[in-house]
Amino acid sequence: MIDVKLFCTKCNKEFSANQVHIICDVCNEALEVETVKQGKICEGNVLEQSIMERYKAFFPWLPIDHETSLGEGFTALVESKKIAKELGLDKLYFKNETQNPTWSFKDRGTLTGVLHAIKLGYKKIGTVSTGNMAVSVAAYGSKANLETFVFVNKSMAAEKLNPIAIYDPHLIKVEGDYGNLYYKSLEIGKENDIYFINSDVPFRVEGYKTLAYEICEQLNFEIPDYVVVPTSAGGNIRGIEKGFEEFKNAGYIDQVPTMICAQASGCSPIDKAYHDEEENITRFENPHTIAHAIENAFPPSGNQVLRKLRQKGGLFVSVTDEEIVKAQAMLAKEGLLVQPASAVPLAAVKKLREEKKLKGNEKIACVLTGSGLKYTAAFEKHDLKSTDCKLEELSTFITKNY
Amino acid sequence: MIDVKLFCTKCNKEFSANQVHIICDVCNEALEVETVKQGKICEGNVLEQSIMERYKAFFPWLPIDHETSLGEGFTALVESKKIAKELGLDKLYFKNETQNPTWSFKDRGTLTGVLHAIKLGYKKIGTVSTGNMAVSVAAYGSKANLETFVFVNKSMAAEKLNPIAIYDPHLIKVEGDYGNLYYKSLEIGKENDIYFINSDVPFRVEGYKTLAYEICEQLNFEIPDYVVVPTSAGGNIRGIEKGFEEFKNAGYIDQVPTMICAQASGCSPIDKAYHDEEENITRFENPHTIAHAIENAFPPSGNQVLRKLRQKGGLFVSVTDEEIVKAQAMLAKEGLLVQPASAVPLAAVKKLREEKKLKGNEKIACVLTGSGLKYTAAFEKHDLKSTDCKLEELSTFITKNY
Repeated sequence: MIDVKLFCTKCNKEFSANQVHIICDVCNEALEVETVKQGKICEGNVLEQSIMERYKAFFPWLPIDHETSLGEGFTALVESKKIAKELGLDKLYFKNETQNPTWSFKDRGTLTGVLHAIKLGYKKIGTVSTGNMAVSVAAYGSKANLETFVFVNKSMAAEKLNPIAIYDPHLIKVEGDYGNLYYKSLEIGKENDIYFINSDVPFRVEGYKTLAYEICEQLNFEIPDYVVVPTSAGGNIRGIEKGFEEFKNAGYIDQVPTMICAQASGCSPIDKAYHDEEENITRFENPHTIAHAIENAFPPSGNQVLRKLRQKGGLFVSVTDEEIVKAQAMLAKEGLLVQPASAVPLAAVKKLREEKKLKGNEKIACVLTGSGLKYTAAFEKHDLKSTDCKLEELSTFITKNY
Repeated sequence: MIDVKLFCTKCNKEFSANQVHIICDVCNEALEVETVKQGKICEGNVLEQSIMERYKAFFPWLPIDHETSLGEGFTALVESKKIAKELGLDKLYFKNETQNPTWSFKDRGTLTGVLHAIKLGYKKIGTVSTGNMAVSVAAYGSKANLETFVFVNKSMAAEKLNPIAIYDPHLIKVEGDYGNLYYKSLEIGKENDIYFINSDVPFRVEGYKTLAYEICEQLNFEIPDYVVVPTSAGGNIRGIEKGFEEFKNAGYIDQVPTMICAQASGCSPIDKAYHDEEENITRFENPHTIAHAIENAFPPSGNQVLRKLRQKGGLFVSVTDEEIVKAQAMLAKEGLLVQPASAVPLAAVKKLREEKKLKGNEKIACVLTGSGLKYTAAFEKHDLKSTDCKLEELSTFITKNY
């Protein structure tokens, strides 16, 4: 394993990756692992590989550890001709991250975070989360035999706690300002030798690069014009963009797709800062959206997403809960059941088309971040239908009505 | 596309596949598609293929239709050294079918069923199910633009109905003897031109072959000694066994793994018939198990599973709800969250080891059929723990206790 450096995404200050660094001590901005300048896909049968084996050239500073993988990644890229036609697009794809081991994109980043923790000799990991990430870290912590700390909000309902608790982590319901817990956890981690793999820590963000690599391969390197990502802390969209950059460096693609940062109107601090022409995001007041999984009022990577997408000509868009629910139904009619946050990209594409910001000849990939089974309360927002019938009348009923 | 024949699994009577045939009109036994005698894997990058493209030589009589696929299959095979060591096994693998598009193994069979329906010109499909299969057929029906009928039990709770209804099928809650509905649906299908892709219809069973093909590839053709399948109607274990047979015919493997039919003691008609040395199964009285997904009191392929496994030296085992819950917890500690039915194979392996029917030097693959998010009531059977703590006391609390 070679050594690797981290850089501040704003002031470019250099940090060693031999310690856990998450935020720049000068400007408090997100750190990032240096970009891989060259690399080759490890050819071979994907069925015999893990994502870390196939793309190891792009993670030269991480160990490959079979005991850590749960078979994350290599998720399907599903084309929808139906919705593409309806919206007047050339090609529309959905990257179905609900097919990961804990049914969300988080697993990719949890894996690389855990591998970095193992490399540094940590025996304890942790996270602060209310949903997908908590489940993912609990699962990978168990698999890797690491003592695992999950901090959640005290008010969390049992139905959301159970799918975390089943993996048997130290699950701690914390009473107090949840917004503070992210930063508090980093302090606690330092004091107690716990590696907190929070939402945008550099070695979590690295894992999301693989999502971009796979899209490239799945489309035989004829990449999309746009990639749309539901954006919360900002780690996922940063990682995906970096993945495309690295495949460009490696000569696999000629350019990087334009990234679209898609948020819910009920909590859209990055979109707001962009349209207000601010340099930095500010805390979003009274956040409230059905897309809980991306309801982050003060995203730690928000400023970096702003900077990066501005520099590259990316787009920012936010959509209402009503538009999200409609997009969720459209996806279900295409056989894809996602949690509301994952319907945000399709709602965003629809809106951009209606506003003519997308011309209609584009090739677009939307990232479906998490399974529809994760947030069942959303079903109530839909007008779901069923009919009653007696067994002896069933035949007549069907013949008459259909 | 070449023509294909169906045969009765008992009397060997031949049927044409140009019509929907499910049961032999002579002996009422399950029909099966003729075994493929030779074939080659379509080499190429798995990331650019669907399972039907990669294994098309083994489905020469089905169309390949990109509009139908949701990216099913190519699920992970996860090795557990931890549990293997605990149980004293050489190698233990889990085939994680929860990574399918609707988070259960059903998607493989639904795909092939839908493709056969399309080939025969059907515009309507249907199924009778209380869970995984209903969700799967509703999803694929939507994707393929087929009118889709799902018959469920009248007493079905809203929480189980919603994940079916969201795909917008004709969802019909039927009042009457649910056991009769399977056969009634086949009549209704004939009368109304609806192709019912029920649990063990021949072209559904075909889809499960791909699970075996993948295990072979994932282990570089060094196949397991045993493959353990949670068994309900019997379609899945039949399909998997047939897949291994076909790969043997094709020269990829030298022998077929020994199949283990794993059932819940609360509903184990096939295991019972085997141990009672009966030729045929009988309806299991008062079925009741936490493993709902395999609670089938009178499995339509039960007799064929009995015949086939007897002929080949397969094993039959049933496990209690207590053993199932324990196995579910063991799997979670390995990072795998499954529904209770999917914990049955591990519980079965543990039991067979304790009874010394497995010697301990074996290589075993267990099929994890469906996601733990599918049946959340099972969480209540576990002693799930969490701790409360105030934010300002968190640091001290962690330092003191861990």
